Amino acid sequence: MSQSIARSGTRHEVTAKNSMSPLEAIDVAYDRIEAERDRNCWIHVRPRDEAREECRRFMARARAGESLPLLGISFGVKDNIDVAGMPTTAGCPAFSYTPWHSARSVERLVAAGAICLGKTNLDQFATGLSGARSPYGSCASVADARYVSGGSSSGSAVAVAAGHVAFALGTDTGGSGRIPAGFNGIVGIKPTVGLVSSRGLVPNCPTLDCVSVFCNTITDGEAVLDVIEGFDPEDPYSRLPKGLSGGKVGPWFRFGRIAAAHVECFGMPECGELYERACERLSQAGGTPIEIDFAPFRETGELMFNGPWVSERRSAIASLMEIEAPPLLEVTGAVLKSALGYSAVDAFGAIHTLYRLRRDAEKIFAGIDVLMVPTAPRPFTLEEMHRDPITLNNRLGYYSYFANLLDLCGVAIPNATLSNGMPMGVTLLAPAWQDRALIGLARQIEGKCSGAAFELKSRA
Amino acid sequence: MSQSIARSGTRHEVTAKNSMSPLEAIDVAYDRIEAERDRNCWIHVRPRDEAREECRRFMARARAGESLPLLGISFGVKDNIDVAGMPTTAGCPAFSYTPWHSARSVERLVAAGAICLGKTNLDQFATGLSGARSPYGSCASVADARYVSGGSSSGSAVAVAAGHVAFALGTDTGGSGRIPAGFNGIVGIKPTVGLVSSRGLVPNCPTLDCVSVFCNTITDGEAVLDVIEGFDPEDPYSRLPKGLSGGKVGPWFRFGRIAAAHVECFGMPECGELYERACERLSQAGGTPIEIDFAPFRETGELMFNGPWVSERRSAIASLMEIEAPPLLEVTGAVLKSALGYSAVDAFGAIHTLYRLRRDAEKIFAGIDVLMVPTAPRPFTLEEMHRDPITLNNRLGYYSYFANLLDLCGVAIPNATLSNGMPMGVTLLAPAWQDRALIGLARQIEGKCSGAAFELKSRA
Repeated sequence: MSQSIARSGTRHEVTAKNSMSPLEAIDVAYDRIEAERDRNCWIHVRPRDEAREECRRFMARARAGESLPLLGISFGVKDNIDVAGMPTTAGCPAFSYTPWHSARSVERLVAAGAICLGKTNLDQFATGLSGARSPYGSCASVADARYVSGGSSSGSAVAVAAGHVAFALGTDTGGSGRIPAGFNGIVGIKPTVGLVSSRGLVPNCPTLDCVSVFCNTITDGEAVLDVIEGFDPEDPYSRLPKGLSGGKVGPWFRFGRIAAAHVECFGMPECGELYERACERLSQAGGTPIEIDFAPFRETGELMFNGPWVSERRSAIASLMEIEAPPLLEVTGAVLKSALGYSAVDAFGAIHTLYRLRRDAEKIFAGIDVLMVPTAPRPFTLEEMHRDPITLNNRLGYYSYFANLLDLCGVAIPNATLSNGMPMGVTLLAPAWQDRALIGLARQIEGKCSGAAFELKSRA
Repeated sequence: MSQSIARSGTRHEVTAKNSMSPLEAIDVAYDRIEAERDRNCWIHVRPRDEAREECRRFMARARAGESLPLLGISFGVKDNIDVAGMPTTAGCPAFSYTPWHSARSVERLVAAGAICLGKTNLDQFATGLSGARSPYGSCASVADARYVSGGSSSGSAVAVAAGHVAFALGTDTGGSGRIPAGFNGIVGIKPTVGLVSSRGLVPNCPTLDCVSVFCNTITDGEAVLDVIEGFDPEDPYSRLPKGLSGGKVGPWFRFGRIAAAHVECFGMPECGELYERACERLSQAGGTPIEIDFAPFRETGELMFNGPWVSERRSAIASLMEIEAPPLLEVTGAVLKSALGYSAVDAFGAIHTLYRLRRDAEKIFAGIDVLMVPTAPRPFTLEEMHRDPITLNNRLGYYSYFANLLDLCGVAIPNATLSNGMPMGVTLLAPAWQDRALIGLARQIEGKCSGAAFELKSRA
């Protein structure tokens, strides 16, 4: 596998055929990064010479016979994931530190020959779904600079969608690995929590955090997942699969869908129409639609944004820093302050409610192979988001918040384009450890999403 | 299988050979229950005629060819587990209600032909490990009425040890299914949380609660577990096993033990000597002792009694009743009041600590097949317990608190007798779903615990 520029010549890919040498590809990547600093997708860019030098060393090792499956493939890393020698800010300059060791996932990628070009922008402490909560500037969708990119892994998604890198690591607690894939017309793979080591992450909600992958094709995402997945005994949140994760969805499958009358679009009905088209496409691919009761998913989502899990966020961050003192963004401070309103009795009460909701979701999944939801209900503009950051953020998470609490894995894929030009995605979800089955299904329908084509707005 | 009176004619057994008819055995049971009301082990006794009538119906069905594996076997049920038509008090008269449906575990026993004779005494709301926290009177060890029976499943253990019933159901959150087995010289099986349905339990810490079995022999316990185990889709805390639970410990096995210098006996060194004898016995049975670091287990135990899980207890009980109003025992009220001192941030902080401790324990279990600990560090008298109920209760749980938090299963077995005549047990522990392997190992060494003989002190 090697790197090439594909899809109208705009994007790097991981698994496509060679069309230039790894060093040439790295130069093209840096040229774009430098030309498009105003996308705000990078917080720290590694010196070009250092990246070229590492690439040369990898090429020499490959010539000597070593197998480097991601040789010379460029990638970005969300800035709440450690890369040795580069500052980790988590979107909060006062928090910044420079780690000696890379996160386990980054270590594995570098061991496979991939080249990290830098650290990408994010909503502060991964607290947000918009990409508009960073002191390093807001990120906009690559399709329309008026609209949010989605977050919190905003920079990673934009860096991939704009063709700066072939793939990027993000994280996902309540949708951060899916929402920005949807608003930028790319693929977002959100593995089962514990499938990829979360050692080296700035914790958010540690029991729910996972590393995610942004890329241009499902095949690329699977190639990256092949490298980064695996049990890590040094990560207390790493898990061994309950069963095999190599499952496959059969040629005739049942997919859960939300009844047309109940699709929530928060005032933009065209989004519901695009969801209908995705359902039709999935039916054409052999799927039988089953209308499911979305209530347990919605209620779980409400627990996430309007319940004590915000205290898990505060607990994790408070263990790292004095969170009153540093200049947090106003919105991050407000969210973390709300954490103080919950007692331990509330927390366990919510955990008990979650056990019931998990059982409800299990029963629904007993009747379907996969659940398809819109990745986000609708896009919002940066202006709208800044006007009402908390309410609109919660709306963005309507179809994503519940996944990690319910121990689901997910793949966000492009679906179609709104009449205003904004790409909108759908997300396939299944119970933990069905990652490979989801990937297989997503690949089946990938080529059929031609409706997702949109114009990449260059900033250069 | 049928019921007989065995072990010096004092006890009912589940699986021993017939020596009297089921109806005769039930009459013997009732005669003893009536003669020994001062043991305080029963809160509610079912009318004798009703039990006899049910037994006759079961016998008729058996004669008609139906398979009833526990035909006519008498049992008791801890009074925080529902039995249809009998009041459930949880040790708090103001809380009492009479359920329409039996707990799932009780339903399964009755479907197998077993006869419930009544509800047994317990520490109020299962909050305690002594048997000395009940408005229905304290329970004492069957070996010495000056000493506590252990709790919270005090009445169930005493009812079995005193020969009132062949077996009894208890519950175990932090040791309640093990401690009273140890102080009464019987077997206590504490299954993996989620192996037996906990539907129909008065919740204590729902994420940690499980139904347990008190009986006279390992074989009896396994026969009961055969009947009650199994996934219950209506119980959100029921789980499907990760692997097979039919594992076996081989003829040569490694057992974890605490180094002699680190065995905590709280001032009664003879208890440490009995633990040494148990270790020698396990070595003779083919085990290689491995000294383990007990720190992660001790620290997990501290989280249990000195951390926010008490708030889970309060959360569960508060959802059932106004817990300020009813006349709670002073000690129960004090424990539940301490729950208000923890925030949700504390709760998630403790959950994160637990994830790390679980991983530490997993690493220890990677080097051993089973861990053997004293069931309790030492016995205390009722007088000592009433003088300092909270401190001494926490000491009782030193070797038991951690098990459910670390997702272990356990079997408490008799070991030996102190010079004062009090029986002391040991507990075998292993990771979740190793229940059958533990039972197999316990059976291997069961006959070798002849040192556990003690004199049953009759109260009649």
